[in-house]
Amino acid sequence: MTAMTEAPPDAVVGIAARTEAHLRTILEAEITRWTARDPRLGEAVRLLESMVMSRGKRLRAAFCYWSWVGTCRWLGTRDHDEGDILDACAAFELLQAFALIHDDIMDDAATRRGLPTIHTTQAERVRRSGWRGEPRRYGEGVAILLGDLAHAYADRCIGNTTPATRALWDELRIELNLGQYLDLRSSAAADGDQPTARSVAMFKSALYTIVRPLQLGATLAPGWMAMSPEARQVAIDRIEAFGRPLGQAFQLRDDLLGVLGDDSRTGKPVGGDLREGKATELVALAARRATPAQASILTHIGNPQLTAAQIATIVEVLHATGAVVLIERRINELVDDAHGKVGNLRIDPETQVTMAALADYVGRRTH
Amino acid sequence: MTAMTEAPPDAVVGIAARTEAHLRTILEAEITRWTARDPRLGEAVRLLESMVMSRGKRLRAAFCYWSWVGTCRWLGTRDHDEGDILDACAAFELLQAFALIHDDIMDDAATRRGLPTIHTTQAERVRRSGWRGEPRRYGEGVAILLGDLAHAYADRCIGNTTPATRALWDELRIELNLGQYLDLRSSAAADGDQPTARSVAMFKSALYTIVRPLQLGATLAPGWMAMSPEARQVAIDRIEAFGRPLGQAFQLRDDLLGVLGDDSRTGKPVGGDLREGKATELVALAARRATPAQASILTHIGNPQLTAAQIATIVEVLHATGAVVLIERRINELVDDAHGKVGNLRIDPETQVTMAALADYVGRRTH
Repeated sequence: MTAMTEAPPDAVVGIAARTEAHLRTILEAEITRWTARDPRLGEAVRLLESMVMSRGKRLRAAFCYWSWVGTCRWLGTRDHDEGDILDACAAFELLQAFALIHDDIMDDAATRRGLPTIHTTQAERVRRSGWRGEPRRYGEGVAILLGDLAHAYADRCIGNTTPATRALWDELRIELNLGQYLDLRSSAAADGDQPTARSVAMFKSALYTIVRPLQLGATLAPGWMAMSPEARQVAIDRIEAFGRPLGQAFQLRDDLLGVLGDDSRTGKPVGGDLREGKATELVALAARRATPAQASILTHIGNPQLTAAQIATIVEVLHATGAVVLIERRINELVDDAHGKVGNLRIDPETQVTMAALADYVGRRTH
Repeated sequence: MTAMTEAPPDAVVGIAARTEAHLRTILEAEITRWTARDPRLGEAVRLLESMVMSRGKRLRAAFCYWSWVGTCRWLGTRDHDEGDILDACAAFELLQAFALIHDDIMDDAATRRGLPTIHTTQAERVRRSGWRGEPRRYGEGVAILLGDLAHAYADRCIGNTTPATRALWDELRIELNLGQYLDLRSSAAADGDQPTARSVAMFKSALYTIVRPLQLGATLAPGWMAMSPEARQVAIDRIEAFGRPLGQAFQLRDDLLGVLGDDSRTGKPVGGDLREGKATELVALAARRATPAQASILTHIGNPQLTAAQIATIVEVLHATGAVVLIERRINELVDDAHGKVGNLRIDPETQVTMAALADYVGRRTH
């Protein structure tokens, strides 16, 4: 076990930079192409580009990439022709931009990755320019469209591929959207019990962020289709065994950062999860352990008007019930669980070391 | 030239029914699969299904299908194995559901296809059930997610395909979103001059509704890839020459129906286009021909609070300036232009007759 990791590991930094360069090439070509038709069309792609290129962890790209490298090396096939894999990494980051842009509308988040969100800057544009219509509706309209555009570009990056890769890509998008629906609905209906929180985390974090990028990267390795169906299934299952606990750890860390984090580092407002009443295991656990006085404080969760002082009081209760310490302990157990499964992955030993470093980062990151 | 067409032609009715049956099979399988995981997930797909299955013209499916049939027959290849083409028809209708669901949020439309829109019924659900949070935000959040889900399902229907089909599918989605952006932005900035209105119509109607479905259907014909690149390019270009005027006619008819139509037939509220200040050729033309008194009435366009009486006054001006008559005449010219190009299409003569009937329907429909 390692200490709390401040900086992302080299395994993330390198592929993040290459993915970002690839994304910039793709989007700049689109900006040039559409600006020639009408500068207002180029402007739309430029707005999307600034969101896509803003600081992101590029975690999904990293999992996809290292799974591909490890599988190539395990199979003894070449891993130097990076064309398809960089497209897949770019696809994951474009899909993440799509998900975040739409998510920020649903949460009415003011900032993301340290920048004002698209729907807020575009609403502001209507006010500043004296345009007609309701600023909120315009801002959200533009954000819906730019998210949709990111989705279309993500899919274009995947393109025609093997049936195994395509099936994973289709399934992860369905899982992502249904997970989001369950999240939104259970927050509104306030029926977000612990099984619901786990289910949401499974879709949005374990599968979408970790398991599916790892599996998709593996299926892109030259030689993958030459493996027997049984061998392919073993590789897929072992990725899932490694990725599920890690995905849970990722989500629990996200939940902790959402209420305890430093918003200059997380890039999004702290307390937002409490204002929107997001169903998290942290809150569910605190609720189960609360005294009646503490429980009455927790009932304020989900009030969009919560003040900073009220949020501080709720955070105190999360600590006092022991929920924070227990969740920290649970994250450590889950990361250890994932570590124990690295050795079973059908990847070469050197990449197994990289995977272990990625697992540490996911569980112990500070943003 | 035929009289105003009331009912859709048989060419539309038949493939609409088969596309709808295929859509139902796809979505029911998804509902079963997800309900087994959590009934709330099945509920999400069920909500999408009711929108997808509600009355729609299925125009894009019809153009895609008949282009495939005509190309198969022209090439002398079999057109009896309908698997791939029905998937493509379903993809177009799912993509249309995606576009409409998101469009209805941007326009805050209350009804669509004669039913209340998703964002309004879901906002109402929050009020009725006493759920927490802002009803509007929840309703729009669900509509964003269900649109996204429809987009993912549409893509899954296209799946892995030929490079030509994939390139068209990617391009039409980018065009659709950029066209929507231009529409939204020019309505807000009130810089929707006639070239802008034409540009929006070209993306949203000519390309997305007619040219791309026709081209995509042709590329799915067995034997398509066996044609020489030059022959393929000729076929693609001739589709465009036929589809562009028809697409313009479709948009002009849509604009007329949007202000003069019968909302029990169009399924959406009449006057909505005037309230949102949509840039249409109809309005641009009236503005160019208006007397100062008429021009001052037209300045109210784009006010979301327009009353029915104010809308009636604006409609009077649209008539009095001669804009309505001129647009009707222009639609007839455009449909005639398309008719004149049917004979050049690389499809068999029998399907050319069907295409001409489709062209009539598009220009002269009443909803």
